[in-house]
Amino acid sequence: MNGAQSLISSLADAGVEVCFGNPGTSEMHLVAALDEVPAPRAVLCLFEGVATGAADGYGRMADRPAATLLHLGPGLGNGLANLHNARRACTPLVNVVGDHATYHKRLDPPLESDIDAVAATVSGWLRRAGAADDLAADAADAVAAALTPPGRIATLILPADLAWTDVSWSAAPATGGPGTVDVVRPIPVADEVVARTAGVLRSGEPGALLIGGAATRGEGLRAAGRIAAATGARLLCETFPARLERGAGVPVAERLAYRAEAVAGQLAGVRHLVLAGAVSPVSFFAYPGAAGDLVPEDCQVHVLAHGQEDLTGALTALADATAKGAAAQLAAPERPSPPGGALTAETMAYVVGALLPERAIVVDEANTSGPWLPGATAGAPPHDWLTLTGGAIGQGLPVATGAAVACPDRPVLCLESDGSAMYTISALWTQAHEGLDVTTVVLNNSGYAILNMELRRAAAAEPGPKARELLDLSRPGLDFVSIARGMGVPAERSVTAEEFTRALGRALAEPGPHLVEAVVPPLV
Amino acid sequence: MNGAQSLISSLADAGVEVCFGNPGTSEMHLVAALDEVPAPRAVLCLFEGVATGAADGYGRMADRPAATLLHLGPGLGNGLANLHNARRACTPLVNVVGDHATYHKRLDPPLESDIDAVAATVSGWLRRAGAADDLAADAADAVAAALTPPGRIATLILPADLAWTDVSWSAAPATGGPGTVDVVRPIPVADEVVARTAGVLRSGEPGALLIGGAATRGEGLRAAGRIAAATGARLLCETFPARLERGAGVPVAERLAYRAEAVAGQLAGVRHLVLAGAVSPVSFFAYPGAAGDLVPEDCQVHVLAHGQEDLTGALTALADATAKGAAAQLAAPERPSPPGGALTAETMAYVVGALLPERAIVVDEANTSGPWLPGATAGAPPHDWLTLTGGAIGQGLPVATGAAVACPDRPVLCLESDGSAMYTISALWTQAHEGLDVTTVVLNNSGYAILNMELRRAAAAEPGPKARELLDLSRPGLDFVSIARGMGVPAERSVTAEEFTRALGRALAEPGPHLVEAVVPPLV
Repeated sequence: MNGAQSLISSLADAGVEVCFGNPGTSEMHLVAALDEVPAPRAVLCLFEGVATGAADGYGRMADRPAATLLHLGPGLGNGLANLHNARRACTPLVNVVGDHATYHKRLDPPLESDIDAVAATVSGWLRRAGAADDLAADAADAVAAALTPPGRIATLILPADLAWTDVSWSAAPATGGPGTVDVVRPIPVADEVVARTAGVLRSGEPGALLIGGAATRGEGLRAAGRIAAATGARLLCETFPARLERGAGVPVAERLAYRAEAVAGQLAGVRHLVLAGAVSPVSFFAYPGAAGDLVPEDCQVHVLAHGQEDLTGALTALADATAKGAAAQLAAPERPSPPGGALTAETMAYVVGALLPERAIVVDEANTSGPWLPGATAGAPPHDWLTLTGGAIGQGLPVATGAAVACPDRPVLCLESDGSAMYTISALWTQAHEGLDVTTVVLNNSGYAILNMELRRAAAAEPGPKARELLDLSRPGLDFVSIARGMGVPAERSVTAEEFTRALGRALAEPGPHLVEAVVPPLV
Repeated sequence: MNGAQSLISSLADAGVEVCFGNPGTSEMHLVAALDEVPAPRAVLCLFEGVATGAADGYGRMADRPAATLLHLGPGLGNGLANLHNARRACTPLVNVVGDHATYHKRLDPPLESDIDAVAATVSGWLRRAGAADDLAADAADAVAAALTPPGRIATLILPADLAWTDVSWSAAPATGGPGTVDVVRPIPVADEVVARTAGVLRSGEPGALLIGGAATRGEGLRAAGRIAAATGARLLCETFPARLERGAGVPVAERLAYRAEAVAGQLAGVRHLVLAGAVSPVSFFAYPGAAGDLVPEDCQVHVLAHGQEDLTGALTALADATAKGAAAQLAAPERPSPPGGALTAETMAYVVGALLPERAIVVDEANTSGPWLPGATAGAPPHDWLTLTGGAIGQGLPVATGAAVACPDRPVLCLESDGSAMYTISALWTQAHEGLDVTTVVLNNSGYAILNMELRRAAAAEPGPKARELLDLSRPGLDFVSIARGMGVPAERSVTAEEFTRALGRALAEPGPHLVEAVVPPLV
């Protein structure tokens, strides 16, 4: 058994079932090992940014890490933006980055670069493998690190010679299954913190409970709903949750807005803001003369639990302390009727609300075309909502791809902007290759509409001709139907609400990947 | 005048004529400034990897830097692979990376990351701007740094608040033109080094002159040709030159092969290897049991000049010392006839050789489909050959885009592999948007053919089913005609040599961008 085989089988033993990758020469022993030992399923991505984004989507839905297989520093670089998003999502994820052989690096061959420095910027755990005999343990350690609450990116840099060196018998991985990984449990929250928080919320002063991370779903979310119902606190959710459970029968958590002005409205009058897995709200960007810290001056911030702590336990305890018998406010089942007329960001949202399938996974990178989506889908059948956690665009198609791999029995709906779609468009090929049940809606408004808005906000400027040139995608217009078909994904275009209703209905009804191009006017 | 305006106009003053970018909110003042002060031309790229690759292609052809405009850490990450290639090409290039406002960073907003650490891995010069008043000087320093021989990547990180802060009058840039940039000249090579090298080459023992960097074109190349003719030294060129002048009437420099085994043949019997702007040859990757240093044991390496030294001066002096009156061996004008029959990597190359236009710029990422290209084009009209300098695939389409912007009066031919094309495919849109005269040939062999070869070389393994899955692009097949049309680039497919001859001829004859998909069988 060589190092590559030891590493791969140890990953499989540790419960890693999928590896998203785009390998190169330095990873060839790892690729060969996939056929030689029990190994994760390998999913080919045509660009590393698709691989890392898919691993993010997989980890958000599976609650355990996928691995990525990346080729040296440039491969890691290509994957960096979606690793940034995954880091912000606290997604468990294991990167295996192939490197030159240890003795080859000093020759400074063309692909040599400082992998460690780049990897450190996104990794919660980083190790450069030092010996073939250690690779099984390295892999198990990486998985354990990735699973450390609230979820981390673990990166293992693997010199090629370690992969091809035989391991000694004693170092071969024990095939003990996932149990061999020593997973850190969430830190319990002290009783007095729960009691103090209960006191705050029962003080009679207006309060809000801001949830994030693992508190945006499951038992934690249900407990949060009970707390809000019993104490009168507003139930708020972080602006960009990694995975928010919502829809009919699910407690209603209102997401904090992207724009600081809107957040000010949401937090107006709140005297106590209790954080559960969320950070204190800050502005996405700074703007001249505007505050970055969005907590109102007369509002006190209290931390019930940080992300690495036992959020569910803390929320359950707090619910027991404040809300015995109280029932959470649940979203009522309610769908809009599919509208007619022009296709706009607004009518698009109603169509989505009308058709969203049960147990759908919605990947939302709709950006400026998205404001009506939360309202239009609030009463749709229960679903998960995955957002752009780190602001690095090009996340949607890959995350949808990974989510579909993680949940083959659930429909995935990816709501994607035109500009963002072009960042990682080759994810469509992987969806076709794997036959994934992903419906991609590309909201084509022929521009970087958000930047039109931001130019006015940040620079207080009307765009001149050169600025407009940098925000415009209309010359030539992007034909996403043609692009998608070129990658083997059936596609059609809609320019009216009726067309979109029919196209989306068809796409959702058929198995496998589809793309619907929704031509909508920009909002700004 | 605010900081953004000061920076932009200082870049223009320093001779930066083009900025390739994909801006975001933190760069909005820079975007606004483009319309407010004399500014470089802004070219929109739909992905930062296209912007950095285009800046590389521009710099290789223009011998002065283009700027890039990148959005925080993720934008830099997306551009990193092609910055890696540009670093290996020693391309002068200025990155402007927008960052959060100085006082906003401590709030750790979603897009915050360690830009400095990532930038340091590719930058020969790196500065985080500290004051709006300094931005004009920062820009001039960045340009000077980029132009420091042999050419460097200079990265300026720009906090948003510096961009929007007014500068004091005295700090506004002097509009003194490019002359205000204090450019470092190449270091002269000492006479005794030239004399010693002349002695080595006249020793009677077999020698070879290995050129790289600026020595692969112009006066340096011509001097190298004379030296080789007079001393009997073989004239070799580094494996992946940034820009090699070649074709009829140009001195013939034989590129070192990619495969170590072939390099061994090229260097067999050579007792003295003289380096001029090239590094001592090493294997691209390490392989089990194979040497990484490719210099034969009984061969001595001599350095005439490093890249940062005055290569042209040293080669001219050496030619004067060794080759008074000797004439270089020049490539004879000679073209293959366009072949008939099946379209293969071989017949494709003959068609290219038959049709290559005068003064063409060839961007070569043909990879495994490329072995016949050097021979088939050796006697074509003089042209420049730009290669994948750093091994990070996805370089071809962007570099071709930038080269076309730099040289609007020259035809650009981009020979691109299917797998590599998918990395940065959106470059086609920028070519259409700008109406660039680029003909892209996508060599579609439905796989990562090079990895099939490397799997056998590195792992000595026949690919099993899982390994094959990671090297195969045939299910579904990529339809590059459809993809290109979706981005506004006219395209057609060829499956015979005759079809390819007609399609390539048409594409080269018409202005503006075209794509020809050449369906070829894999070689391995």
